[in-house]
Amino acid sequence: MGRTSDARKKILSAAQSLIELRGYSALGVAEICKAAGVPKGSFYYFFESKEALALAVIDEHWADQERLWRHVLTGEAAPLRRLRRLFEATEAAQRAGQRSCGTVSGCLFGNLSLEMSNHTEAVRGRLQEIFDLQVDLVEAVIAEALARAEVSVADPREAARSVVAQLEGQVLFAKLYNDTRRLAPLWPNCLALLGARAPDEAAGVLAAGREGLPPT
Amino acid sequence: MGRTSDARKKILSAAQSLIELRGYSALGVAEICKAAGVPKGSFYYFFESKEALALAVIDEHWADQERLWRHVLTGEAAPLRRLRRLFEATEAAQRAGQRSCGTVSGCLFGNLSLEMSNHTEAVRGRLQEIFDLQVDLVEAVIAEALARAEVSVADPREAARSVVAQLEGQVLFAKLYNDTRRLAPLWPNCLALLGARAPDEAAGVLAAGREGLPPT
Repeated sequence: MGRTSDARKKILSAAQSLIELRGYSALGVAEICKAAGVPKGSFYYFFESKEALALAVIDEHWADQERLWRHVLTGEAAPLRRLRRLFEATEAAQRAGQRSCGTVSGCLFGNLSLEMSNHTEAVRGRLQEIFDLQVDLVEAVIAEALARAEVSVADPREAARSVVAQLEGQVLFAKLYNDTRRLAPLWPNCLALLGARAPDEAAGVLAAGREGLPPT
Repeated sequence: MGRTSDARKKILSAAQSLIELRGYSALGVAEICKAAGVPKGSFYYFFESKEALALAVIDEHWADQERLWRHVLTGEAAPLRRLRRLFEATEAAQRAGQRSCGTVSGCLFGNLSLEMSNHTEAVRGRLQEIFDLQVDLVEAVIAEALARAEVSVADPREAARSVVAQLEGQVLFAKLYNDTRRLAPLWPNCLALLGARAPDEAAGVLAAGREGLPPT
């Protein structure tokens, strides 16, 4: 049993690295097994199909990322401070990825959304659920900031969607230009999108002179 | 000669549709030729490789899109009015695509950025050039709005990058959720990112009650 679950883990881990590096469609089952150091015959013992593997990779990655998102977005700190931590954590994760494999790998969910959503309904549905959960988490923080009159948004859910969309867009460019500095505008842009009333937290950024912020 | 250039066009057009539908990696040359109604042997008469075809598809699509972007972003109208037209044109193009093939196909350049940029340097370089040109076009309009004191940004280039990133992020979600209504926040978000001083153009949107706008 120990060795069995080990083989499944190895396949998942190899598949995630290869998908981040080269996308899903370009991969074959044989190549994944070779990278995992697992005999090809055992693949179908663990996964019904390559699509089932993709879904497992997505779930595994989301389990990690959800833990991180919940950790940075909840707690005692002021809501805008917690939102800022989300962008810092995103930047740190992309920098770590770039150090380990030479290129910015971007967001696995964004990558697979663009590559797979129009030809695999199961993957599309799962990715929709994950992004809905991300929006839930960001929305809760925005609602809290709204209750404290630190942001001015009419619809916290719409605002949360726009913050997550901005995150995906900037991560796309960080990947294309292989440059994590592309992520620096995330925080000031988030403040601008939220019509942030610039409490202490925002004031520091304003003083640092970034563009695009609403006048305070 | 007439038939020759016709075959090249057919291959390009079939390849673009198939790439939009299923991505690049999943496609084979034989399938592209079959969809184009062109004998497989003639493919390598026109294209050195599948990568060369991808580059030609990208160039062809950018030639069309650049014409559209230049048309909507230049002219006599006020700069913010022209920027707004860009989002309207984007929404119209995505709606037309959805009508013709059933699903929102997203942005070909964004799709290929996420799918190919980390394993094809030639494609990465070409896509970087195209997004730089998009940012140039948007930057010029923002600089004009800045000269009229209609926006408050410290760095028009950074601001233009953020507007284009927001566009890519929202288009990604329109594709994932197969719903062009996801594009509705583009314009109010653009105003928020630009710290727009809400001239006549912005005032109409403010009155329509969208969130995320800076207080005027």
